[in-house]
Amino acid sequence: MYDVNRIRADFPILAREVNGRPLVYLDNGASAQKPRCVIDAMTQFYEQDYANVHRGLHYLSNVATEKYESVRGTVARFLNAPSEEEIVFTTGSTEAINLVSYAWAAPRLQPGDEIVLSILEHHANIVPWHFLRERQGVVLKWVEIEADGSLDPEKVIAAIGPKTRLVAVTHMSNVLGTRVDVKAICAGAHAKGVPVLVDGSQGAVHAPVDVADIGCDFYAITGHKLYGPSGSGAIFIRRERMEEMRPFLGGGDMIDTVTRDAVTYAKPPLRFEAGTPGIVQQVGLGVALKYLMDLGMENVAAHEAALRDYAQAKLSGLNWLNIQGNAPDKGAIFSMTLNGPAHPHDISTILDKRGVAVRAGTHCAMPLMTSLGLTATARASFGLYNTREEVDALVSALELCHELLS
Amino acid sequence: MYDVNRIRADFPILAREVNGRPLVYLDNGASAQKPRCVIDAMTQFYEQDYANVHRGLHYLSNVATEKYESVRGTVARFLNAPSEEEIVFTTGSTEAINLVSYAWAAPRLQPGDEIVLSILEHHANIVPWHFLRERQGVVLKWVEIEADGSLDPEKVIAAIGPKTRLVAVTHMSNVLGTRVDVKAICAGAHAKGVPVLVDGSQGAVHAPVDVADIGCDFYAITGHKLYGPSGSGAIFIRRERMEEMRPFLGGGDMIDTVTRDAVTYAKPPLRFEAGTPGIVQQVGLGVALKYLMDLGMENVAAHEAALRDYAQAKLSGLNWLNIQGNAPDKGAIFSMTLNGPAHPHDISTILDKRGVAVRAGTHCAMPLMTSLGLTATARASFGLYNTREEVDALVSALELCHELLS
Repeated sequence: MYDVNRIRADFPILAREVNGRPLVYLDNGASAQKPRCVIDAMTQFYEQDYANVHRGLHYLSNVATEKYESVRGTVARFLNAPSEEEIVFTTGSTEAINLVSYAWAAPRLQPGDEIVLSILEHHANIVPWHFLRERQGVVLKWVEIEADGSLDPEKVIAAIGPKTRLVAVTHMSNVLGTRVDVKAICAGAHAKGVPVLVDGSQGAVHAPVDVADIGCDFYAITGHKLYGPSGSGAIFIRRERMEEMRPFLGGGDMIDTVTRDAVTYAKPPLRFEAGTPGIVQQVGLGVALKYLMDLGMENVAAHEAALRDYAQAKLSGLNWLNIQGNAPDKGAIFSMTLNGPAHPHDISTILDKRGVAVRAGTHCAMPLMTSLGLTATARASFGLYNTREEVDALVSALELCHELLS
Repeated sequence: MYDVNRIRADFPILAREVNGRPLVYLDNGASAQKPRCVIDAMTQFYEQDYANVHRGLHYLSNVATEKYESVRGTVARFLNAPSEEEIVFTTGSTEAINLVSYAWAAPRLQPGDEIVLSILEHHANIVPWHFLRERQGVVLKWVEIEADGSLDPEKVIAAIGPKTRLVAVTHMSNVLGTRVDVKAICAGAHAKGVPVLVDGSQGAVHAPVDVADIGCDFYAITGHKLYGPSGSGAIFIRRERMEEMRPFLGGGDMIDTVTRDAVTYAKPPLRFEAGTPGIVQQVGLGVALKYLMDLGMENVAAHEAALRDYAQAKLSGLNWLNIQGNAPDKGAIFSMTLNGPAHPHDISTILDKRGVAVRAGTHCAMPLMTSLGLTATARASFGLYNTREEVDALVSALELCHELLS
């Protein structure tokens, strides 16, 4: 039984007020709040167990290394990766996708080679590919969405031509909530011999992920959106792809030997983890993922689907409000504009007076905003701890906006 | 008055025991422990203030952004940087030096161009340059040390030839404790028109740093060695150098506009900070740096100099023990071997039984170890909270090693 009030009690910040009202935190798409178990695990680690990892032989260093390295298995379990050696720790999806761009794509792609992207992508899954366009003449091919905001996997597959070297696609839009059938895309791309990178920054937060079933080559997750610490993250990289990658960041821990004239590298995944890593935040990420697995991601998904249905019903009753995207089975993310001249920034500011935290802007997805004919939206994005009462608070605050702004 | 016992009380982990003995933590060169104020600031942030930064308009996002961005000024003050716009946040020195390598050096250096390094360097300040050797034919020129472990700045300057494009040198050796006269090196290098990168991973931890006085172009620091959180850090980059750099990591926050066909970038320093940053650990870094400035880095330096003198006197009385490096004014870092066949790993293991944490190995400085004719040392590295009694505990544990291993 998913008891949302019991779950809310796990998150200290949810008890606070903002502007004299209970905090209604609907900015989960930007970052999620942290349960006490995650915060406490980091405090305990700093107070009792802290040392650098990998390089020491003393007691604390061994404790720290064990705790840190055990997270690799936790991430593998969370993603159902075949092996924890296919998990590379990162500081989040941005570093993860740059890793793929610099270490796998840059040395392989030739001028005129193509990368297929959907118009749904977040800048984290766009700008690293723009670098390859700017620096080495790679061509970006964009796939459009349907009128309801859904992405037809067949259109993605159809965009793959003889010069396509990679498909880079999100698992879930951070603006529209659209879920993407990445399994179908992987099957179609692989049939044409093209690897697929999935940006799981949102997708992994809202439903179970099974990279073995999806069949992707790369799957990036961001810890801070997964109720884990800032600066934590990981990427699943299929073994064959990892073997094709050259090192990215250079430094300690990722080498085998260093001389004046030469360097040899550690085996993957350590080869891609240079220097002292984010030890404590990765330990926190492990605790966050265990918390999610204990709740059951299928239960999280069911809770959020019910919230989405409730919110959709309520919001669709507001005939002065526009919601972007209503793809079937979309996530509980609502990008909103008001009829008339009201700017989404004003919506956000008025909602904030009622304690309702939403984000306004382009949500790091400018190509999508342009394709929607918008410069900004106000976005309410729900998480595992949100409630129907918070939907009601959002609706009531939106009514105030309408009153004040129209 | 520097009251080390009062200071020790600020560090929760120092109260713990290891193997039934009080912890004697002498692995500060690898990473330092954290004062309660740093740990508490992060806990408080997660419990009360957490949200993503830069992109929001709601209350928590504004609080988080203010706290996070204020750290830039703290870092600038700590380093005496002319402007906080010359501070780029990183996850540590490794990322910082890779940033310089990828964003400044890689697009500028031609085959045959040279980078001058000292043999003292840590792998973090070697491997990124080896990448340029491997990938684009850059030549690494190594400068030797003197018999006492000191580095003659004149030799570094003399190594700069017409094809030298960068000098990359440590401020303090993590193996020998040697301090490097980086100010003299900068003056000499600049007279030849060559920029200087200083790896401050150790140097900034043990004495006041003034980048304006040093005159360097790049100065990298690592938060976790500065009594701050893991995954925190920053680099000072002189404005002229920053303007010469192209973007490194691509993603949100570092752009101005993104379209299908083009991208324009945010102004520095944000241009070099892609995606959601390590918000909470950077806030923790700010608290750590304030803690250090409150103690006074000149007082920290004096305390550690006294410890060094005390330890040197004690250790030099052990005629079966070899200490690597005795440069004038060296830091309180002692790399040790025993006469005879005992491996440094065994030293570390036996010391650990007495609760004394030291590191054994190559300390991520293989070229230096090779030049010393060694494969490993056991390294005791002191920090601001260490005491004379801990030197005594080290000496007593070393005597046990001698007894057991010789």
